[in-house]
Amino acid sequence: MFKRRIISEGHLIDSGIMSKILNLIIDEKADYQIIHFDIGKKQDEISQLELQLNCESEEKLNVVMEKLVLLGAWEKGAIESVFKTSDKDGCVPSDFYSTSNHRTEIFLDQKWQKVSRQRMDAMIALRNHGPECIKLRDVKKGDKILCGSESVRVFPPDAERQSEGFGFMTNDVSSERSDNIAVLKVASALREIKDNGQKAVVVAGPVVVHTGGAGALAALIREGYIHGLLGGNAIAVHDLESEFYGTSLGVDMKTGKPTHGGHFHHMRAINKINSLGSIKGAISKGELTSGLMYEVIKSGIPYCLAGSIRDDGPLPETMMDMIEAQKQYGDIIKGTDMLIMLSTMLHSIGAGNMTPSWVKTICIDINPAVVTKLSDRGTGQAVGIVSDVGLFLRAVAGELNLDFT
Amino acid sequence: MFKRRIISEGHLIDSGIMSKILNLIIDEKADYQIIHFDIGKKQDEISQLELQLNCESEEKLNVVMEKLVLLGAWEKGAIESVFKTSDKDGCVPSDFYSTSNHRTEIFLDQKWQKVSRQRMDAMIALRNHGPECIKLRDVKKGDKILCGSESVRVFPPDAERQSEGFGFMTNDVSSERSDNIAVLKVASALREIKDNGQKAVVVAGPVVVHTGGAGALAALIREGYIHGLLGGNAIAVHDLESEFYGTSLGVDMKTGKPTHGGHFHHMRAINKINSLGSIKGAISKGELTSGLMYEVIKSGIPYCLAGSIRDDGPLPETMMDMIEAQKQYGDIIKGTDMLIMLSTMLHSIGAGNMTPSWVKTICIDINPAVVTKLSDRGTGQAVGIVSDVGLFLRAVAGELNLDFT
Amino acid sequence: MFKRRIISEGHLIDSGIMSKILNLIIDEKADYQIIHFDIGKKQDEISQLELQLNCESEEKLNVVMEKLVLLGAWEKGAIESVFKTSDKDGCVPSDFYSTSNHRTEIFLDQKWQKVSRQRMDAMIALRNHGPECIKLRDVKKGDKILCGSESVRVFPPDAERQSEGFGFMTNDVSSERSDNIAVLKVASALREIKDNGQKAVVVAGPVVVHTGGAGALAALIREGYIHGLLGGNAIAVHDLESEFYGTSLGVDMKTGKPTHGGHFHHMRAINKINSLGSIKGAISKGELTSGLMYEVIKSGIPYCLAGSIRDDGPLPETMMDMIEAQKQYGDIIKGTDMLIMLSTMLHSIGAGNMTPSWVKTICIDINPAVVTKLSDRGTGQAVGIVSDVGLFLRAVAGELNLDFT
Amino acid sequence: MFKRRIISEGHLIDSGIMSKILNLIIDEKADYQIIHFDIGKKQDEISQLELQLNCESEEKLNVVMEKLVLLGAWEKGAIESVFKTSDKDGCVPSDFYSTSNHRTEIFLDQKWQKVSRQRMDAMIALRNHGPECIKLRDVKKGDKILCGSESVRVFPPDAERQSEGFGFMTNDVSSERSDNIAVLKVASALREIKDNGQKAVVVAGPVVVHTGGAGALAALIREGYIHGLLGGNAIAVHDLESEFYGTSLGVDMKTGKPTHGGHFHHMRAINKINSLGSIKGAISKGELTSGLMYEVIKSGIPYCLAGSIRDDGPLPETMMDMIEAQKQYGDIIKGTDMLIMLSTMLHSIGAGNMTPSWVKTICIDINPAVVTKLSDRGTGQAVGIVSDVGLFLRAVAGELNLDFT
Repeated sequence: MFKRRIISEGHLIDSGIMSKILNLIIDEKADYQIIHFDIGKKQDEISQLELQLNCESEEKLNVVMEKLVLLGAWEKGAIESVFKTSDKDGCVPSDFYSTSNHRTEIFLDQKWQKVSRQRMDAMIALRNHGPECIKLRDVKKGDKILCGSESVRVFPPDAERQSEGFGFMTNDVSSERSDNIAVLKVASALREIKDNGQKAVVVAGPVVVHTGGAGALAALIREGYIHGLLGGNAIAVHDLESEFYGTSLGVDMKTGKPTHGGHFHHMRAINKINSLGSIKGAISKGELTSGLMYEVIKSGIPYCLAGSIRDDGPLPETMMDMIEAQKQYGDIIKGTDMLIMLSTMLHSIGAGNMTPSWVKTICIDINPAVVTKLSDRGTGQAVGIVSDVGLFLRAVAGELNLDFT
Repeated sequence: MFKRRIISEGHLIDSGIMSKILNLIIDEKADYQIIHFDIGKKQDEISQLELQLNCESEEKLNVVMEKLVLLGAWEKGAIESVFKTSDKDGCVPSDFYSTSNHRTEIFLDQKWQKVSRQRMDAMIALRNHGPECIKLRDVKKGDKILCGSESVRVFPPDAERQSEGFGFMTNDVSSERSDNIAVLKVASALREIKDNGQKAVVVAGPVVVHTGGAGALAALIREGYIHGLLGGNAIAVHDLESEFYGTSLGVDMKTGKPTHGGHFHHMRAINKINSLGSIKGAISKGELTSGLMYEVIKSGIPYCLAGSIRDDGPLPETMMDMIEAQKQYGDIIKGTDMLIMLSTMLHSIGAGNMTPSWVKTICIDINPAVVTKLSDRGTGQAVGIVSDVGLFLRAVAGELNLDFT
Repeated sequence: MFKRRIISEGHLIDSGIMSKILNLIIDEKADYQIIHFDIGKKQDEISQLELQLNCESEEKLNVVMEKLVLLGAWEKGAIESVFKTSDKDGCVPSDFYSTSNHRTEIFLDQKWQKVSRQRMDAMIALRNHGPECIKLRDVKKGDKILCGSESVRVFPPDAERQSEGFGFMTNDVSSERSDNIAVLKVASALREIKDNGQKAVVVAGPVVVHTGGAGALAALIREGYIHGLLGGNAIAVHDLESEFYGTSLGVDMKTGKPTHGGHFHHMRAINKINSLGSIKGAISKGELTSGLMYEVIKSGIPYCLAGSIRDDGPLPETMMDMIEAQKQYGDIIKGTDMLIMLSTMLHSIGAGNMTPSWVKTICIDINPAVVTKLSDRGTGQAVGIVSDVGLFLRAVAGELNLDFT
Repeated sequence: MFKRRIISEGHLIDSGIMSKILNLIIDEKADYQIIHFDIGKKQDEISQLELQLNCESEEKLNVVMEKLVLLGAWEKGAIESVFKTSDKDGCVPSDFYSTSNHRTEIFLDQKWQKVSRQRMDAMIALRNHGPECIKLRDVKKGDKILCGSESVRVFPPDAERQSEGFGFMTNDVSSERSDNIAVLKVASALREIKDNGQKAVVVAGPVVVHTGGAGALAALIREGYIHGLLGGNAIAVHDLESEFYGTSLGVDMKTGKPTHGGHFHHMRAINKINSLGSIKGAISKGELTSGLMYEVIKSGIPYCLAGSIRDDGPLPETMMDMIEAQKQYGDIIKGTDMLIMLSTMLHSIGAGNMTPSWVKTICIDINPAVVTKLSDRGTGQAVGIVSDVGLFLRAVAGELNLDFT
């Protein structure tokens, strides 16, 4: 039997992490013996666990250890980090450590040091200023890459059990909940963000425009509740289409009727912007005077329209190089306190990939499956609201007494 | 070749019925020759069609004819109705005519006579006062039942192409439409119903309560916009649960949090009503002073809570005999001008079965599949709104300036 | 401060129950102090917890206690059960204990005694043979009803973490899983059920017929894998329609094309059965020679077709009195080892209400929301498979080498 | 009143086009007078329509005319095409003609000439070899661009009413259909495609791998049924993950259990491919010996993995420049006879945009909304199958007697 001593500390019971640790070991067909367990006797006391992990091979021990790290356990008597050198651009040694989106520390120079630029699916490289998450494609030959998980500890966010905030939505995704309560909570969170000078970023799909929510979102931006917009070509195109021609995907925004031939409108809108040079050009030439993109540009908040295989045009502002688009998304997400995902699975998963797990993340979609998928892809902190995004945004803006159409 | 002459008249082209007639004949692998086609030259002129249907057998001719009747075609030189006598309760001759929900006439005593009590899946019996739709289970030995379709003509409602009403929603069920427009249309239709002294009936599921829409619906009832309520045991139980204990299915209606053990509340609510004798008893004893069922009973509008296999309790007011429940549903639907279905597939299909196709029917559900299913079951006139029923009702009540919680 | 000592025992950590106990107390804004916690040092050792619950009032203490009982905690130094007498049929004292679907014991005559006929949302009455779950409507004046929760302990099923069975599906409902694995697991479970002489009951909706799964289900019944069928009027009607006329809801089962006028077929099928007296009569007269209902009746397994507000006909075998239908459902479920729910939310919730939580419960539906709803209504043990029920049943029957069409 | 004479010819009634023409004019609040209508007297005879369109302004006339063209109507006494010159790259005159995906001809040099490279949302440029669809971004200053719609006629595909092919699925998207029939139809269509040397292209999302359908799809490719693959980074990553580590998105493909830490596997797979240079390199070095990407590359069929904002890695073969990716997609689609869309909305809409409406297009997805969205975006020819893509592919491959895992 190969053995290793494991430590974990914190709200191990009420967060459910203790259960996960033991179940993981059993699922892996390994074995454990609890050496020591000091339970927090009262609500605000933390617990301390030391257990001995027994495996049939050294290799198995490494496999299980790697997974325990994700749950916030670490090896007793921390071991100095091992960095190996990449021998080719975009490649790392095969036993590299792959990050989660949780806060992470590594044992380096005999002390626990925080890893910067936390994101999921990254490598930890040793830079001059310390350890840092980098994407695989940014690895250069010669980079020093952290290998193994023996010198890592991560801090999964505690379940938000005491939260007066969004905790109520944590556990399930159901269309049978009162969305009016969710409206009140989101409005109050946005008010708090604004009052405290914090940062909220919206990821939005074209459904925001189709369902009549663009005016409400534009008002939120104009009034300073939102500090970054992540989207694609389509949300901008349909916003412009509705500003110039009163339709969205060819559907009249006033009557809800499909207009025959109205599907031309989005191409006319793109052509018009191309003629004017850009969306910004359309504004400065007085041709675009309201709407979502107008408020985004007028307010000066950063935005990125990431291109995709389905785009028409694209608009001059759309970034069709995905490497660059991911970089811009990442820059806008940096330092955000709240991420609001509005009916776009593609861009939400993209943004989720780059967002640390401690950022408040809300996903509003009429399809309950979207939140499940986000969570399957690692953005487990996202709380889901199954609702109509247009009505939802209008209700939030109404609650904040904003003026909008 | 066996032949028959077929007549049809009306807005055959713009309603699409002419296309359906020809396609039906081709799909049935029969053949046709157009004898005469007088097209309406202008928008308000009707067209007239006479065609010869050719089939390889008399039997095939009958099969195709039966189906053409549904599209509003009839046999040239109408044939006197044939009634055969039922020889057993609940049974009809095997060539009985099965009704649709469209307006129907039969050729009787050498003239076209309207069939009364129109509904789908019924038989046409000859009663003293004329031909009438009756359900199979109401057939008595000795009843005279219409057989064959040669003496029938039906009037499918024209597509509502010119309608300023709900026509805009006719063609598709999409979650990518502006529900704000739908809110305005529904509010305006309800205002018109009230102003004109017409009748609107609501079919509602417990999701109305769970999603926080009960207060808005109660206000619509209190203010005279709704004239009948069709539901089940659950909507009443959860309304009472939320009135007595502030939860719905154990979820706190103020915070949206599931309350531990709150799933007891619905049983306590039922027990309380049982002790007080009935919901009505609870009101008269001053124990129930607000909410959906309160307004329903206070306003005196007819209602029926149809039982089901999943019911707890049930409440004293719940009808557990489905034969009787269907009868009560049918009585409430009689003469209604508008049927609003709120997030309950079961009761909506039940109500749809009893409703003539000329009744304006709207179905609001977060699941787009519900409208497809309604239509597959014959309620083809239902227009679907894919939305959150709680937010939707609140927005409608807001638009009508109603007071609600 | 009001205090009470609470005990719990078992796999408290790995089952997650310990976390739930502490979180419940915190959520209720009560307080705790852990008096004693003996952690199971190894995988197969159980843990023992004693804690002191502190509340600001006696009433609060009762509220929290009632909820803790549901998690398998009980009061230290068990207290003799208190039974109060019902003073009216269908009514119980207001502090009655409402059951969950977990195994339950009460402290009676100074010992823990098992409650019989376990089901959710029931009362515990004292009968000659001991304590028993009864439905509210079956309570008679004079019945002795258990009140309070101080003398109750329940046994929530451990998470099936080590199970080679269905444990893999416990945690989430996702359409992004390999249903082929689920097919293999279900086939192997059915084989085991049959080999061991255990009992499997199916709850099935008409979608089983529409999607072409009726032949596979009929084969499973014929070959002895299924020992009870719970459904409604529609599944039988459409099975008969497809046997007599080759269509289901008017859609040709061979070509998949809607047949014009085919919606008549289900009424013809009902009329035919009515003429022959019953489905059984149709079989004995040689008119019905294959299909789902044929195999159900031929095999002699118990079945119940529960009526609903949406039923046409109904068939002679359909039970339109919901009180009686619930009784029959309950009788068929009694003693079942496995419950398979096939695409019918209504009947599945109904069956789930009557089923103890230790029965293996699988729900196969193309709509991921159905399992969420089952769970919200207390059938938390149901594992969900998001799949096409027709293809799924055919694959299971294929895996078991059955002959079917 | 401004007037114009309009001509249309073909199966105007049974295709429903005649209804659409009249309804369009009414919806536009214009008026018509039918000058001449020669109805096809028998099934195989075409009809001929001449009508006078009356509008209140010349401008309105142009608007309505533009829309009528889409329905296959054209101006009587065809008018020579007008080309205007683009004065800026990526810009066209504001009255440019925007194409649909239907076959299109323009009246040029006094005869109707076919437009090449048909696709939707394109412009028609005059090139040396004749008129051609080009994308807005490919327009160069000086290009001659067709303006107005007076000289255009398009040929919408007739409704496939007589088809023994996929016509059965044309009318609705329902989860209540027998997917076994769809399996047989798709298998038989693929057999025909192969036998006749035609071309089938698959658009596939990662769900194909997650749901266990990759082996079946790989077999279809190996055996020559599929001639092009359009996807994204994720389908390749998860295929490689499952080949190298036996998991897909961290879920074990054999047991269906999520493996703790298995979410690392996809990063390991990418790193491994990077080290080997490419997927092709992995094959040539003997490291990748089976699976979907293996068969794609071994068979030599063209493929494109289009990048997106959510991609990890990406793989060396993934094209992150969307302009280039769209070009490659277009090249692979060129000349295809059948397009099969497997559970990816993003890439399906992208592919649909480039595909002429006469290409047989099937979309298999467990979410009924996907087909509605495709259709809303112009790919109206797509027939939808609501099913589990893994089980579906396995059933198709089984029906074709292929060997697969």
